[in-house]
Amino acid sequence: MGRITAHRPVTRITLGHEPHRRPDTLVVEEPLEIRVGGLPLAVTMRTPGNDVELAAGFLVSEGVIAHAAQFGSAIHCGGPGTGGVENTYNVLDVTLAPGVPAPTPDLARSVYTSSSCGLCGKASIEAVETVSNYDVAADAAALDATLLATFPDRLRAAQAVFQKTGGLHAAGLFDAGTGELLVVREDVGRHNAVDKVVGWAVLHGRLPLSGTVLMVSGRAGFELAQKAVMAGIPILAAVSAPSSLAVELAAASGLTLVGFLRGQSMNVYAGAERLRVPALSGTAG
Amino acid sequence: MGRITAHRPVTRITLGHEPHRRPDTLVVEEPLEIRVGGLPLAVTMRTPGNDVELAAGFLVSEGVIAHAAQFGSAIHCGGPGTGGVENTYNVLDVTLAPGVPAPTPDLARSVYTSSSCGLCGKASIEAVETVSNYDVAADAAALDATLLATFPDRLRAAQAVFQKTGGLHAAGLFDAGTGELLVVREDVGRHNAVDKVVGWAVLHGRLPLSGTVLMVSGRAGFELAQKAVMAGIPILAAVSAPSSLAVELAAASGLTLVGFLRGQSMNVYAGAERLRVPALSGTAG
Repeated sequence: MGRITAHRPVTRITLGHEPHRRPDTLVVEEPLEIRVGGLPLAVTMRTPGNDVELAAGFLVSEGVIAHAAQFGSAIHCGGPGTGGVENTYNVLDVTLAPGVPAPTPDLARSVYTSSSCGLCGKASIEAVETVSNYDVAADAAALDATLLATFPDRLRAAQAVFQKTGGLHAAGLFDAGTGELLVVREDVGRHNAVDKVVGWAVLHGRLPLSGTVLMVSGRAGFELAQKAVMAGIPILAAVSAPSSLAVELAAASGLTLVGFLRGQSMNVYAGAERLRVPALSGTAG
Repeated sequence: MGRITAHRPVTRITLGHEPHRRPDTLVVEEPLEIRVGGLPLAVTMRTPGNDVELAAGFLVSEGVIAHAAQFGSAIHCGGPGTGGVENTYNVLDVTLAPGVPAPTPDLARSVYTSSSCGLCGKASIEAVETVSNYDVAADAAALDATLLATFPDRLRAAQAVFQKTGGLHAAGLFDAGTGELLVVREDVGRHNAVDKVVGWAVLHGRLPLSGTVLMVSGRAGFELAQKAVMAGIPILAAVSAPSSLAVELAAASGLTLVGFLRGQSMNVYAGAERLRVPALSGTAG
């Protein structure tokens, strides 16, 4: 676990006091190159740890795999020029199962530009719907708003590293019925935290993630909504604001999208029918 | 300005009260494809507006250009399949000035993997140092800590859109000597906000940005530190935590890196010699 945080000296300045040097704990950020069949696919700046999950979740998000059996295997290998002697643990090579088509190198770009309508938000939404293996609109999940309101504090309590560094995004997966916290992952990149959660799920044979809630510590943009839809997650909840395109994707695909989930309140931007709000006790005679 | 925010109905739930529908303001997110000489280079999810700045700043960050004269021109063009008839304003084609080498398509990847030491944080740092046109270590900028402490509130006050949506990252450029706020840009993506600031500067002939402070609303990861170094900005200040690799790049390149800049306090992770702290009035006899 030594690579997840690093200690560095810092000069702490508080106006009106003497500056002083002290050790500080930082979140570690290192590049990870994801290869498929030996060919470079993507480089992401991530917090080391759960790299296989990160790669698996990334491949789910991009529509390359949808089941554990398609994943094959993965090994950390040396970087270019090292002759395989020095292993930086920053290059992960995934071998897909036989018969699974390899992704194209500029896969991320093709997802957004494959539609005939040109590059626009509508094309991005259609691309996700075309590629997705699962139908979140058909998911019968229901969720008590009272239960949902407890998720942010529980996610925060489960964040092991954030407390020390303040530098990590978190993503947690909850059971919509029981409220059980199934898995939590942290990363310096918000997308990576979600990829690790989805990768954990696909490697454990849990896709599609029917009846679950993906809770994220920050905002909910298009790509996070895309990752939820691609993994078959019916409910996405964020502590902060969603973007317009995330809301449009949610509405188009049947994803329930909750934002500004804080304390006793929340905004439901799409799929509000999945939320059960306790009836008020009558106050009128 | 209509495309920067969008109005959507939202169901507002507060436990113990009746849910109600109301209009909400969201930050707009749309894909932007940046092309150079007609060839696709990158797609980013961004908030529309200042697209030419975004593209110019991106090209500075990646080491393609370093001066306004290298930029040439840029036009929004129709997406693929539209025959150029429908313009979504989501494809921006940059024409570099004659003699400026075009970037390679997988430029972002090559930046991180071009070193012979394999893919690691050290290689990423060396890549930035190799590509950078400016020497921030040589910048004689000095900054009063008292002045710096005013920047977060001034950045927030200058954010036009955040107040309405809560969904935007901000980047602001300040003069280190006078404290003047030179420019502010907001975007749904934190990297885009910085690219827009740098793009504004390069298009106005202001690179290298000697004697300036780049202030960001969130965290400071490696790529934000990279963008500061590539633009010749000597001081990067963030409201939240830096990552380990951002601190290492700052220390290696002579960038002053300040994190957790809140209220009267701040942590200085590298380049503390640029900060002037007011002498305490003696209390001892």
